[in-house]
Amino acid sequence: MDIIKVKATSRTAAVAGAIAGVIREHGLAEVQAIGAGAVNQAVKAIILAKRYLDEDGISIATIPEFVDVDIDGKVRTAVKLVVEPI
Amino acid sequence: MDIIKVKATSRTAAVAGAIAGVIREHGLAEVQAIGAGAVNQAVKAIILAKRYLDEDGISIATIPEFVDVDIDGKVRTAVKLVVEPI
Repeated sequence: MDIIKVKATSRTAAVAGAIAGVIREHGLAEVQAIGAGAVNQAVKAIILAKRYLDEDGISIATIPEFVDVDIDGKVRTAVKLVVEPI
Repeated sequence: MDIIKVKATSRTAAVAGAIAGVIREHGLAEVQAIGAGAVNQAVKAIILAKRYLDEDGISIATIPEFVDVDIDGKVRTAVKLVVEPI
């Protein structure tokens, strides 16, 4: 299962569709964002994905955590949002 | 139970302490943020609060949603993050 990487410029609906699709297929999705704009987009996409999945009778919650990621040889702190049914 | 309102300039540790305290007392906390910087601070504070509560054996998850709020007579869309034990 690939991590869904979100940028500040990512389209909310596209990310939401990806999250909902991964949860339907794998029962869990991981969303990663670096920086305030990206984290905001990720949260908005999870809200939309929640609406999509509510229609399928799937209720989701998210567990956020910090992760260190390597970007072009530099270590940066990302926010990882684990999204799963409750 | 008061809603914990987070700004882009809010101190992460202070918000995290408030979230952990409200969850210990009420079993649920509601965090509200308007704008990317505030949403980012809210998510970071929830990650920290999760660490505080993990030490008490309490695991938390977050359910995000949009809410309309009245700010000085103008309707704005806020992100509400409901934080509760799982």
